[in-house]
Amino acid sequence: MKATGIVVEYNPLHNGHVYHAQQAKLETGADVIIAVMSGNFLQRGEPAFVDKWTRTKMALASGVDIVFELPYRFATGNAPVFAQGAIELLDAVGCSAFCFGSEDGTIEPFHNSLQLIDRHTDEYETAVKKAIAEGVSYPMALNQAYETIIAGQPSLPVADLSMPNNILGFHYMEAAESIGSSMKAVTIRRMGAGYHDDSLESQKIASATGIRKSFFGSEKLDEVSDFIPTVTKQLLHEWQSERMVFGNWESFYPFLRFVILREGPSRLRTIADVSEGIENLIFRAAQSQDSFQSFMDAVKSKRYTWTRIQRMLTHILTGFTKISRAEMEKPTYLRLLGMTNEGRSYLNERKKELLLPLISKVASFSDPSLDMDINASNIYALALGKGTGVVSTIGLDYQISPIMEDHFSFKFFK
Amino acid sequence: MKATGIVVEYNPLHNGHVYHAQQAKLETGADVIIAVMSGNFLQRGEPAFVDKWTRTKMALASGVDIVFELPYRFATGNAPVFAQGAIELLDAVGCSAFCFGSEDGTIEPFHNSLQLIDRHTDEYETAVKKAIAEGVSYPMALNQAYETIIAGQPSLPVADLSMPNNILGFHYMEAAESIGSSMKAVTIRRMGAGYHDDSLESQKIASATGIRKSFFGSEKLDEVSDFIPTVTKQLLHEWQSERMVFGNWESFYPFLRFVILREGPSRLRTIADVSEGIENLIFRAAQSQDSFQSFMDAVKSKRYTWTRIQRMLTHILTGFTKISRAEMEKPTYLRLLGMTNEGRSYLNERKKELLLPLISKVASFSDPSLDMDINASNIYALALGKGTGVVSTIGLDYQISPIMEDHFSFKFFK
Repeated sequence: MKATGIVVEYNPLHNGHVYHAQQAKLETGADVIIAVMSGNFLQRGEPAFVDKWTRTKMALASGVDIVFELPYRFATGNAPVFAQGAIELLDAVGCSAFCFGSEDGTIEPFHNSLQLIDRHTDEYETAVKKAIAEGVSYPMALNQAYETIIAGQPSLPVADLSMPNNILGFHYMEAAESIGSSMKAVTIRRMGAGYHDDSLESQKIASATGIRKSFFGSEKLDEVSDFIPTVTKQLLHEWQSERMVFGNWESFYPFLRFVILREGPSRLRTIADVSEGIENLIFRAAQSQDSFQSFMDAVKSKRYTWTRIQRMLTHILTGFTKISRAEMEKPTYLRLLGMTNEGRSYLNERKKELLLPLISKVASFSDPSLDMDINASNIYALALGKGTGVVSTIGLDYQISPIMEDHFSFKFFK
Repeated sequence: MKATGIVVEYNPLHNGHVYHAQQAKLETGADVIIAVMSGNFLQRGEPAFVDKWTRTKMALASGVDIVFELPYRFATGNAPVFAQGAIELLDAVGCSAFCFGSEDGTIEPFHNSLQLIDRHTDEYETAVKKAIAEGVSYPMALNQAYETIIAGQPSLPVADLSMPNNILGFHYMEAAESIGSSMKAVTIRRMGAGYHDDSLESQKIASATGIRKSFFGSEKLDEVSDFIPTVTKQLLHEWQSERMVFGNWESFYPFLRFVILREGPSRLRTIADVSEGIENLIFRAAQSQDSFQSFMDAVKSKRYTWTRIQRMLTHILTGFTKISRAEMEKPTYLRLLGMTNEGRSYLNERKKELLLPLISKVASFSDPSLDMDINASNIYALALGKGTGVVSTIGLDYQISPIMEDHFSFKFFK
């Protein structure tokens, strides 16, 4: 059997995601689609809208055959780290291709961009350092350096690396090259709204951001039903009816604030991504600011992107230190969150060729990175639980078996 | 002017405390009573019923002239540590006597007990080690060792060191001796209910524990009014009407649980008082237990007293590590929480003779122990605040000046 990999967050899963999974299968002639999906904290340094099991169900009902969890360490990393973790997992599970969404849907410009940077490594790195020294954010420095290099090749079609999806795609390809993967890179044009679009328009494909905003504004899921498959609608309704709060930073702020006060600047400095004196700013802001929004207003600056700050805060919340991160350089397991019958057949066929251990029960495997994933799950559940925040949804990683198509229906797991 | 020191928690202040302050003044012929009082976390490892400023007002309206905060490091320590911190502060501020409550109100047995242990140090320490090796708790081991020694002197009147107030008194005297203080030790017989009595009886003096329990049970302050002075009643009403929650571990449990999950066993081990494998028990209990009560049921054992466990939990909550504690061996400041006009006259007269710096504004002084006090205050305020736990009562240490009699009335600080 032939598998194609995709990298997803499904926050939440919408029609554009369904289209991408279907097209990935069609274009690559794959028997199964394997998704590597972030857990309960996402690449932009945010708690997920709903938890990883709920998003796994959405995936399995929408064209994905196997879902693996991208470990916390990679899921909350910057684009190169995120891409490296995801690609290594897809390679380890034997995918023959990976497929990402991009702005124009052609792969050639990405190959050109990669080769260009490969050939101008020194020039590129010098330009990055220079831009950072001038005080711009890291992503902007990368983009400026890239612009410098492509300026010398005006006739070559290259990828536009100012667009978030293109940036990720570029890093997937770079990661695949770095590990000498035989996976073929494929891209499909993204449909509909851009990543940052906030409004729901008349089109049937809207951004996940827009869907979340619409929900938070109206407290009604009906308004977004045109943009999300029935399974998403159903599962979001279930989440709501169990009086769970949808993931958002404001709900986590009492815990974040508490832990910032508890840690103080000297321990905040040990946390991953916290650097260069920002710990004092964070500590002062927690003392004075009563909401996440006002806290962010007090902390943000030209030097750090909103995303970068949110990643620091995620790591502060979960206690992810620089030392912890250094101990988790590469993915060490394939954590199965769920699969269809097709997915099961694929894994049965390949089980002896997997490059990493397959985990379907966390209790049977001991690993610092897996402990971190479980820890992040528990903290997510604690902050979003009913009422006081004291709920019995801690330890779900030990209680929930991988979601199987056999057992799965919209009524499953009530 | 002549000052007598007392060591208090006022959790909350009741008629027995008023009696003690009055008698201490009378018996020693003092002009002023100086109280060293725990901050927002107490010696039994519990959050205070109401905060330190509210309890300072109770004190100033009830016969105390000056209130200093016992730093967190000492306030949450075991009896010898608590006593050492308190006595050093009373000595530093120039008290000529200190006065504590005891079961029978005579000082001679305490002097005898101190001398006996001094003369049998080796025997005493060997007996303590032996008892601990047999698996009993530390306080019980001390008591067993003490019993061994006094058994050799059946005719000498000695203190009963199985009673909590006597234990503290003994340690106050031991601490005074250890620093060569010239303060005279005085004791007054405690009136009314014992420390552990839970019920309110017909007597007008009840234990603070009983008063708190009664309040939590009935949600009415009226039932306890016979046992507390008007100022206590008034201030507890104000606390309640501002919709603040009375300090109790259940309210702190979501934060405690969150931070236990975040830290994991390896970091829990670095926390003060956490030792000998209990970090694993604590971590597992936090994963499974939804309430503080059930958490404690899962953690407690013969080896550790309830109080010892609560102290660990307080330190986990506030992030107080073994290293932090080692850096704060002795009190380094006199933190003024409030004073009467008499108290002000005393301090004016003595200000050049104080053995430690007097702090009335925390912003003007930098000290790790003071930072810890402020940190503990902030965490206390965060957990007990209105509604979601996000309140604007963080940073009160910077906002509130010492409470002065001039400005203080029952309406003050609304």
